[in-house]
Amino acid sequence: MRAYTGDGDVNEETTAAIARIREEVCVLHAELVRYGLVAWTAGNVSGRVPGTDLFVIKPSGISYDDLTPESIVVCDADGVLVDGDLSPSSDTDAHAYVYRHMPDVGGVVHTHSTYATAWAARGESIPCVLTAMGDEFGGEIPVGPFALIGDDSIGRGIVKTLSGHNSPAVLMQNHGVFTIGKDARAAVKAAVMCEDVARTVHIARQLGEPIPIPQDDVARLYDRYQNVYGQR
Amino acid sequence: MRAYTGDGDVNEETTAAIARIREEVCVLHAELVRYGLVAWTAGNVSGRVPGTDLFVIKPSGISYDDLTPESIVVCDADGVLVDGDLSPSSDTDAHAYVYRHMPDVGGVVHTHSTYATAWAARGESIPCVLTAMGDEFGGEIPVGPFALIGDDSIGRGIVKTLSGHNSPAVLMQNHGVFTIGKDARAAVKAAVMCEDVARTVHIARQLGEPIPIPQDDVARLYDRYQNVYGQR
Amino acid sequence: MRAYTGDGDVNEETTAAIARIREEVCVLHAELVRYGLVAWTAGNVSGRVPGTDLFVIKPSGISYDDLTPESIVVCDADGVLVDGDLSPSSDTDAHAYVYRHMPDVGGVVHTHSTYATAWAARGESIPCVLTAMGDEFGGEIPVGPFALIGDDSIGRGIVKTLSGHNSPAVLMQNHGVFTIGKDARAAVKAAVMCEDVARTVHIARQLGEPIPIPQDDVARLYDRYQNVYGQR
Amino acid sequence: MRAYTGDGDVNEETTAAIARIREEVCVLHAELVRYGLVAWTAGNVSGRVPGTDLFVIKPSGISYDDLTPESIVVCDADGVLVDGDLSPSSDTDAHAYVYRHMPDVGGVVHTHSTYATAWAARGESIPCVLTAMGDEFGGEIPVGPFALIGDDSIGRGIVKTLSGHNSPAVLMQNHGVFTIGKDARAAVKAAVMCEDVARTVHIARQLGEPIPIPQDDVARLYDRYQNVYGQR
Repeated sequence: MRAYTGDGDVNEETTAAIARIREEVCVLHAELVRYGLVAWTAGNVSGRVPGTDLFVIKPSGISYDDLTPESIVVCDADGVLVDGDLSPSSDTDAHAYVYRHMPDVGGVVHTHSTYATAWAARGESIPCVLTAMGDEFGGEIPVGPFALIGDDSIGRGIVKTLSGHNSPAVLMQNHGVFTIGKDARAAVKAAVMCEDVARTVHIARQLGEPIPIPQDDVARLYDRYQNVYGQR
Repeated sequence: MRAYTGDGDVNEETTAAIARIREEVCVLHAELVRYGLVAWTAGNVSGRVPGTDLFVIKPSGISYDDLTPESIVVCDADGVLVDGDLSPSSDTDAHAYVYRHMPDVGGVVHTHSTYATAWAARGESIPCVLTAMGDEFGGEIPVGPFALIGDDSIGRGIVKTLSGHNSPAVLMQNHGVFTIGKDARAAVKAAVMCEDVARTVHIARQLGEPIPIPQDDVARLYDRYQNVYGQR
Repeated sequence: MRAYTGDGDVNEETTAAIARIREEVCVLHAELVRYGLVAWTAGNVSGRVPGTDLFVIKPSGISYDDLTPESIVVCDADGVLVDGDLSPSSDTDAHAYVYRHMPDVGGVVHTHSTYATAWAARGESIPCVLTAMGDEFGGEIPVGPFALIGDDSIGRGIVKTLSGHNSPAVLMQNHGVFTIGKDARAAVKAAVMCEDVARTVHIARQLGEPIPIPQDDVARLYDRYQNVYGQR
Repeated sequence: MRAYTGDGDVNEETTAAIARIREEVCVLHAELVRYGLVAWTAGNVSGRVPGTDLFVIKPSGISYDDLTPESIVVCDADGVLVDGDLSPSSDTDAHAYVYRHMPDVGGVVHTHSTYATAWAARGESIPCVLTAMGDEFGGEIPVGPFALIGDDSIGRGIVKTLSGHNSPAVLMQNHGVFTIGKDARAAVKAAVMCEDVARTVHIARQLGEPIPIPQDDVARLYDRYQNVYGQR
């Protein structure tokens, strides 16, 4: 394995943090498989290494069955490989752009999950008609621009769409979903919930119009869920 | 673990009953996962402790993988935690309201299962067009009101809708499903069957109108199933 | 276990045949679960005991997880329990009627599988627009009458609909599917393929009209598949 | 097992290559099951034996559970069995035709996967409205002719439709999918991705029209994916 050769201090603490986040990100990919969000090798999770400009991400084109913590690669803030034997995900530039421009983001997930991508193919945002959407997304799930892979276009589209928005998920037109979170686990949760509500609202709309939830009720749901749900 | 400090007699019998129902409710959560009724941590099962005003319920925001009988919490009739290390489900108030107002109910289940929630998002009850619906629900599955979490609104909506109704399931508008049963297992069965018929009737309606079942035939199916099906 | 008390010769050969068919029918129920054809306890497989008027069938209301060869019950030609500790399936009368009136049938399966039951809820037969339907069903999958449980109505509807028809599957209106086969395994295969084509044709029709297959091509497909497919 | 009796040199190298490809093709069938592309025994994978005119393929009508490397049969360029105890897949003639006429093809897969087959039943190609389709298929997924099993019709339809086309997948009208690849694994990947995009585009179209992707952007996506994605 190539040694880390970045400019930052790579002390023992960072080495340990990298090992921990590689393990976590490796395990979280199994959640994408479990919830049926990915086919073959299409989809990836990344996680920021706390206290550094580094992040770890899935290697490109590797089967989920074959992922190990060691196979997860480490990149710097520009998405350049700094540790690992494999090439990073072809979506690494988009992840890197998000980490550079959204300092509170600690995890990013990308999938082509079926129902969310179907909304993205039509370029339609998902309206907030479920209390679970109010809880997790605080309103609609927005659509980002059509953008080709290969430069900063996708990253810019994600950051521009999500900045100032409650939703941790964006539907990139004709493409798929990107989600963000305070850490990789939160971003995976957002990806799971995004597909879940994308599917439920799609199915609801197949036979008529869902009833809207008043905006102030959405705000109450979001506020409560972000502050009360789960363990303290 | 905090000791039980309620006013009731907590004799050995109650202690044993609590242990049994914690085990049962823990195991039943796996059925929600197996039947695909829940995503991430959204959904919960509770069960009344026989001979007491207590019930046990899932802790809030805990992964189904991590549930153990010991992690299931015990609440009193007002939904206040009386035993357990974790905060109870954010839906505990709704469960508690049902137990207080429906003395024959021994189990309550809540899910956002996809097809049932899609009907709920449109505020439409599911018409009884399947013999399996006649068997289990004795007619349509009704819709309850839109209600915000945080007070008794959800509980009141459940009890008002289900009182005097054959159906053990109610579709809470824009929210999801609550089911009741003589015990936790029966409520889980109702949640599984509710999603099953919600899906089948949805799919039937996608390509035309299902044929109604005459009401007296529904009554015959319901009566027979409640009295003849299964083992004596 | 109650001893067999029928009038027939219950020699060692029959005892061995009963044990074999109980084992086979027990294992085949797992295929219903694997292919997602059943929810909770709704669905059943039966198999004729070769050389006798007996058949074996699932006990009523028992979880698929809990089925063992010993728990499978033995019934006579009238559907009366002749061996076993549990009550037979509530659909036993329908299975018995089929065995009495279709001597070549060695296995019967009943499910409420989602897509097939959706066609049944609208009372629509499934048109033969897939070569796989030509192969297995030799034409459309027909609809049988609405019939209540409790007498011979369901059995009569199955036999009347399937007699002289290529299809081993019938969609009982508002109810579900019954399939037949030379043995229990063939009937399970028909139930799996029935749901598979019911789903594919449903999805095809959601976005337009499938192209019909000319009737003489259907006949060629059916003939070839029944005589050439598989191992000699 | 019958010994290989073809005219070619069957030296140790070929024997070893046959053993390897039998193992690979056996394992790849499990991917068809994992991704839900097949029901019962309908679907098959074949792989060319490098350096020979031979290919290996699934035996006819055998359960996926029962496949072993030894059960996979070896056929010559005309699809005639040259090694193995079982009859080859009833689709062997179509596979053989492809190998004879497309020398770069090293693997062929056939399924009746649900959504792709639904498009095939209507005789509609799948429009390229997802970046993932641009990546893998380089444009639309085309429809091939209606063709009966029993002669070269299916093989000719596959080769004619795919020749000069970017797509490694063809929807055979009223029938199902055939995919090709440089090896069996690539053909299985194409079958998995074909169903994935068939499903997503179907669902997108249920509620409106997907936004087209400009043809030159499709070309850029295809070029990049074929040359940059994955490990070097």
